[in-house]
Amino acid sequence: MNIYMDNGATTFPKPPEVAEAMVRYITQVGGNVNRGSYTSAFDAGDVVYETREMLAALFNSHEPEQIIFTRHVTESLNLVLKGCFNPGDHVLVTSMEHNAVMRPLNALLEKSVTFSCIPCTPEGMLQSDAFETMHKPHTKAVVMTHASNVSGGVMDIQKAADFCRTHRLDLIIDAAQTAGVLPIDVIKLEPAAVCFTGHKGLYGPQGIGGVWLSKAFSRKLQPLMEGGTGSFSEEEVQPRHLPDKFEPGTLNLPGIYGLHAALSWLKKTGIDAIHHHEMTLTQQFLEGLSTIPQVQVVGPLDRAKRTAVVSITTQQMDLGEMAHRLGKDYGIATRSGLHCAPRAHQTLGTFPTGTVRFSFGYFNTSQQVDAALRSLKELLNN
Amino acid sequence: MNIYMDNGATTFPKPPEVAEAMVRYITQVGGNVNRGSYTSAFDAGDVVYETREMLAALFNSHEPEQIIFTRHVTESLNLVLKGCFNPGDHVLVTSMEHNAVMRPLNALLEKSVTFSCIPCTPEGMLQSDAFETMHKPHTKAVVMTHASNVSGGVMDIQKAADFCRTHRLDLIIDAAQTAGVLPIDVIKLEPAAVCFTGHKGLYGPQGIGGVWLSKAFSRKLQPLMEGGTGSFSEEEVQPRHLPDKFEPGTLNLPGIYGLHAALSWLKKTGIDAIHHHEMTLTQQFLEGLSTIPQVQVVGPLDRAKRTAVVSITTQQMDLGEMAHRLGKDYGIATRSGLHCAPRAHQTLGTFPTGTVRFSFGYFNTSQQVDAALRSLKELLNN
Repeated sequence: MNIYMDNGATTFPKPPEVAEAMVRYITQVGGNVNRGSYTSAFDAGDVVYETREMLAALFNSHEPEQIIFTRHVTESLNLVLKGCFNPGDHVLVTSMEHNAVMRPLNALLEKSVTFSCIPCTPEGMLQSDAFETMHKPHTKAVVMTHASNVSGGVMDIQKAADFCRTHRLDLIIDAAQTAGVLPIDVIKLEPAAVCFTGHKGLYGPQGIGGVWLSKAFSRKLQPLMEGGTGSFSEEEVQPRHLPDKFEPGTLNLPGIYGLHAALSWLKKTGIDAIHHHEMTLTQQFLEGLSTIPQVQVVGPLDRAKRTAVVSITTQQMDLGEMAHRLGKDYGIATRSGLHCAPRAHQTLGTFPTGTVRFSFGYFNTSQQVDAALRSLKELLNN
Repeated sequence: MNIYMDNGATTFPKPPEVAEAMVRYITQVGGNVNRGSYTSAFDAGDVVYETREMLAALFNSHEPEQIIFTRHVTESLNLVLKGCFNPGDHVLVTSMEHNAVMRPLNALLEKSVTFSCIPCTPEGMLQSDAFETMHKPHTKAVVMTHASNVSGGVMDIQKAADFCRTHRLDLIIDAAQTAGVLPIDVIKLEPAAVCFTGHKGLYGPQGIGGVWLSKAFSRKLQPLMEGGTGSFSEEEVQPRHLPDKFEPGTLNLPGIYGLHAALSWLKKTGIDAIHHHEMTLTQQFLEGLSTIPQVQVVGPLDRAKRTAVVSITTQQMDLGEMAHRLGKDYGIATRSGLHCAPRAHQTLGTFPTGTVRFSFGYFNTSQQVDAALRSLKELLNN
């Protein structure tokens, strides 16, 4: 038995088209973009452009050049956070952030950029009036996760957007857990940046991620890296136009071909249908857990406030051992520990022991959820 | 006919094992490293570790954790250049550098880090005494390409190393064109950093590169990005140990599997054998070119001072058109223009028109070189 329930870390399996597209690029295309004048270089250019178009459309944007390719959401967040603040600036974050937000912000302290954490409830949900009370005259941005990778709780991003609009702050969204899962509408939200990765809810390969940047924000944002772009090659300074300003060096073309295939699959299958399936499994799992008295579920119990990520704790056994035995004895892949989000665990009251996290994807089945529940019961009753 | 002669941009084709290994990861492994407690996560960990071992061995180092994975050599150079200088520091570069070096250095001017260019001969080779004359009291490092991506000229890196040792400077090597091609011995050279990419001389996929860091240099180097590492997850600051200090976020595992396969192929085939084959083709091409009076070869004519990159110019036709017609009429993939290295072209006297670059790889044949020479003659005589 082999049951993969670690889709919050990376979705698995990927649609078969993903590996096929990567193989097609590597074995048949091979060329570079912007850098050759032969057929395969043009083919790659088309696929890259179409991938940008599909990603832009995902966020209800129609300007593909506002999509910047990065290696992963961590790079997207670093690009955005390192390039837009000046000494003295202040940033608001929530108390549910991942270390991909917290560690860059801690590094920015050295440059006199400070931050405050908006407190969340023990369920990990935003306090209704916290934004206003934490706001300072020199606050420049709100950086927040759209959904917690620990609790699965979905944040009220529209509320954050309204607050940012009122106070003219930049809204920077960490969509690691939600791109391809929940709607993110840049016309409604007017964010400065939406940071995402390709290998979670978008079902693409690891190694490719990106960020959508608003035009105004992209103009003031400094690049994290400079280098060759195949454009304005007579100049030794980085070009200013998008996407080249933020995309030096050779693109991860196998990764982009894989992501292109994944996005096509996502469109064909339907994001709503995928999400509905995942949430049906989540509901089944939550209901099953409610019959296991030794287990406590972390985060909101209301399915409407959740993604397909369910973290649990128990007093009955060590959580590392639980995950290990689920893997070894039952073939169930989960993840234990702090999930790179210590602050979220502090908020949820699960620091420093952490949780065991189950996270479902499109390829999980109801039978697998039953098997996970049976395994948990057996483990805890022996 | 389809003849790929743009191996300086990316080697093509790749050994068949490369795509196979990537498919194996994506379809059968799927897991993350350091972040799960199930079998496939362990499998991925082994492959990542072995890849570091093979890369370290390539540079005659035996400490795999000194290999840091990046997206490409541009990121490696940015990581190194952005994280080690203080205001007032001065850097020496050669007049043959790529924009992956020049554009970050120009960005560093804003932080009062300045640079001087060591002049090279019109053949693009280092002047024998230039190091000493350009050295200033506040010079901290020499950053230089090991071989030019324009002229193919190989730099005397040992001489730079001796100079750096004498003056206690950090030697930062841009090995974009030489990793997997020429020996780079970190014991002999004692560099601070060797920056490389996976998709050129190492025959791996695009999207994965890296940097070897000396221990002393790695301690003073600040990360370019921070984020989750799956280690010390209770802390909101970046861990200090290698490689985690410089590797936040999910690794490009398909890329690393591909690179692992490429390095295994390289070892099996023999770097010397590959280099010998490429240089035989280069010699054949150079000899053929000497019989085409309308063509001028850029860079050193001595094969011993070259890699398998040959740039040419002609007065007879526009170079963009030449590359275009080579591709369209003869199926020969080359690259025209400035190759993201305007300063190198200024040195070589080919700025701003650039050159048409032919670059050979292991999978090119003598027949293909003949075909390229025939096509050039035909093009120039019509």
